[in-house]
Amino acid sequence: MNQSPKNIGIVGSGLVGALLAIYLRKAGHRVTVFDRRPDIRTVEFTGRSINLAMSNRGWKALRGAGIEEEVRRIAIPLYQRAMHLVGKPLYYQPYGKDGEAIWSISRGVLNRKMIDLAEAAGTTFRFGEKVWDVDLPTAQLFTGETEKGTWDAWKFDHIFGCDGAFSRVRHKMQRRSRFDYSQEFIDVGYKELTIRPNPDGTHKLDKNSFHIWPRGSFMFIAMPNLDGSFTCTLFLPFEGEVSFEALNTREDTRAFFSRHFPTVMPDIDNLCEDFAKNPTSALVTIKCYPWTYWDKIALVGDAAHAVVPFFGQGMNAGFEDISVLYSLMETYGDDWEAIFRAYEAQRKPDADAIAELSYRNFVEMSTKTADPSFLLQKRIEKHFAEQHPGLWIPAYSRVTFSDRPYREALEIGDQQEAIMKEIMQMPDLEARWDSLEVSNRMLELLREYGE
Amino acid sequence: MNQSPKNIGIVGSGLVGALLAIYLRKAGHRVTVFDRRPDIRTVEFTGRSINLAMSNRGWKALRGAGIEEEVRRIAIPLYQRAMHLVGKPLYYQPYGKDGEAIWSISRGVLNRKMIDLAEAAGTTFRFGEKVWDVDLPTAQLFTGETEKGTWDAWKFDHIFGCDGAFSRVRHKMQRRSRFDYSQEFIDVGYKELTIRPNPDGTHKLDKNSFHIWPRGSFMFIAMPNLDGSFTCTLFLPFEGEVSFEALNTREDTRAFFSRHFPTVMPDIDNLCEDFAKNPTSALVTIKCYPWTYWDKIALVGDAAHAVVPFFGQGMNAGFEDISVLYSLMETYGDDWEAIFRAYEAQRKPDADAIAELSYRNFVEMSTKTADPSFLLQKRIEKHFAEQHPGLWIPAYSRVTFSDRPYREALEIGDQQEAIMKEIMQMPDLEARWDSLEVSNRMLELLREYGE
Repeated sequence: MNQSPKNIGIVGSGLVGALLAIYLRKAGHRVTVFDRRPDIRTVEFTGRSINLAMSNRGWKALRGAGIEEEVRRIAIPLYQRAMHLVGKPLYYQPYGKDGEAIWSISRGVLNRKMIDLAEAAGTTFRFGEKVWDVDLPTAQLFTGETEKGTWDAWKFDHIFGCDGAFSRVRHKMQRRSRFDYSQEFIDVGYKELTIRPNPDGTHKLDKNSFHIWPRGSFMFIAMPNLDGSFTCTLFLPFEGEVSFEALNTREDTRAFFSRHFPTVMPDIDNLCEDFAKNPTSALVTIKCYPWTYWDKIALVGDAAHAVVPFFGQGMNAGFEDISVLYSLMETYGDDWEAIFRAYEAQRKPDADAIAELSYRNFVEMSTKTADPSFLLQKRIEKHFAEQHPGLWIPAYSRVTFSDRPYREALEIGDQQEAIMKEIMQMPDLEARWDSLEVSNRMLELLREYGE
Repeated sequence: MNQSPKNIGIVGSGLVGALLAIYLRKAGHRVTVFDRRPDIRTVEFTGRSINLAMSNRGWKALRGAGIEEEVRRIAIPLYQRAMHLVGKPLYYQPYGKDGEAIWSISRGVLNRKMIDLAEAAGTTFRFGEKVWDVDLPTAQLFTGETEKGTWDAWKFDHIFGCDGAFSRVRHKMQRRSRFDYSQEFIDVGYKELTIRPNPDGTHKLDKNSFHIWPRGSFMFIAMPNLDGSFTCTLFLPFEGEVSFEALNTREDTRAFFSRHFPTVMPDIDNLCEDFAKNPTSALVTIKCYPWTYWDKIALVGDAAHAVVPFFGQGMNAGFEDISVLYSLMETYGDDWEAIFRAYEAQRKPDADAIAELSYRNFVEMSTKTADPSFLLQKRIEKHFAEQHPGLWIPAYSRVTFSDRPYREALEIGDQQEAIMKEIMQMPDLEARWDSLEVSNRMLELLREYGE
């Protein structure tokens, strides 16, 4: 790396902050990470986070930091979706023919590991150090016990805001003129629950599957942990007939699980207990621009672009930010102004694309899974993809198993939707959905749209 | 008014805060208005604000407060647009056949008057009192000299945030979960300038016209003041070939005005002087939701919905919020929870609609005024409207000269656009734009869309 050593501050010791620290140490910089919370390695997990699915973009960034193998050891490959539908036997959808997998990791376990690795690489961590203010033009952080108390000032050459969806660093940038910002919540919240291991420590469900219980406006998912447990998430509307608001007593909860998720009944007792105990959290899409201030400040990860979790890409997108930043550091050397300009310009359209794709997946899951026309469309697409490998790669694969820009997955996905809209208007489609005529029409439209 | 007297705090002594105070006094409440700035009646105007165009919705709200006539005395009716095009003689577009007018008012003069009137109605004003924090559930304001110093607490039954686009009250609500928020800046900024009166105190341009110098990506407007001057606004991109960024010296400015606005040349010297002295400001659309917190807090005016000024509706929309609120107070009496729920539910779609209409007007002015197809479309619409009075009321009239909901103007505007999209595809349109065939097709489409 052709860069002069700089004194760099990072706000946030989460996954993105820790990985960025490792990269910056690799480039020869002095790195101090601030976090208002105590060292996660010294505290019990709060358990309040959706389990993570590491996929291609995440692994690539870890590989670049030389820590891929370390992380593989704490991850479990999921080769397929396990679909738990009502009134149908459990069935499996492999992610791909070639053993493609996403990897289940506990956020807490991963975060501890990443901080260990960042510390071993020479990063200084200042835990329990609350950042209250940032002076943007001078790259100074101000910390202290309370917002109204006395503060210490910390001066850096550059500061990275890796402090998540409700970033303090971004908050300071947001008060400036000409800073675009939006936060948009969806009407669905989530609650994290646990399926405990069998008494012998084994998993109660297939451990190499991503388990999904889709129920239209709500769903339940489960991802395996190393200790034989599953971290589960219930996504449910906040208000309405079937909603968090409507589940007030343990009896409500028990009736809800018995009715809608009979296959998780063996764990009903601890599910109901966790349900009462664990918080209900909201889901938000956050967009902003610019992401940087001069050559002084840059936002990375959720601080710049928080997405709803329905594509499993939040962490992967944050890690990919770091891959992009590092590659620009290699290109521009000491010209941090150029690095930051190129970083935000290149990365913003991809962040917007994954936000859109994630939101669409939410809409698809909640409103379309019961729509016969939608299901027929998916059947046609799958059939065509099998007949013409490579010609019809679904957005899911482009996002999850490639490192092509997110915006490309969105564009091609839009094109596929336009094609399918025409196909779905063909007469008598239900009877001849797998006919040569349909396939040929799709080939024809692909050529047209390709031009 | 069938309400028990309450102790009500208002943050912001601008136009909306002052008018709301008058309405709340009328309903029998105790009202205290806080403003971090000094009393505007005691200070020189900063001159940094787009001159106001009071139209129907504004007048209606003033009438409801019994202060319409007072305000008419400081307003100048504008019956027409005066269009200053390059290479064409000045021409006038009347707003309507029936003497319809918008009214030019200086924001500063109006604000002073409104505070006088609110004070006369028994409102307590606390100027120079800086609100730093709001406790939402207890309706308490915290004020003090500095953010980090000691604060005084002020407890109310209800608090209204009338503190504008960068509202502190909203800012506090924004940090809560499930609060949707967006701020989006446009690439065009503005600078306020002045055309001075003639030596004899008369206006240099027709004083009953809204003067516009449209130039595609930028424009200059002028509105008359009582003292013979015009308050002018230059809207210009921040960056680019013709932009604020490109006008660095007095010579640049002089050349810019000479070239693009030759008719204002007599005032070139003071324009250039003001240009150097006055700030360049940004333009933002702000949306949020919810607008209220329990029965405790409500946002009114720009604090809830700031729009770009290209429809002249910012103040009018804020005043209309108050008309709506007051009418709901009459309906629901002491049930403030019901008042606030109905207020935000009813008003939010209208605020979104005027935001969209205002933004579209900006796009129209900056990109379409030179497009021959757009101009042909406008010609056809005007021709049709003259032939069929009442059948084709343009969005501008619906917004400016009626009190029907903004959302209706947007919906009908969308319908008109869809109709014109079909019309514009008729062959050979340039030659027969005023033919019976075109008119009949429009009638036909109106019937179709009306169904």
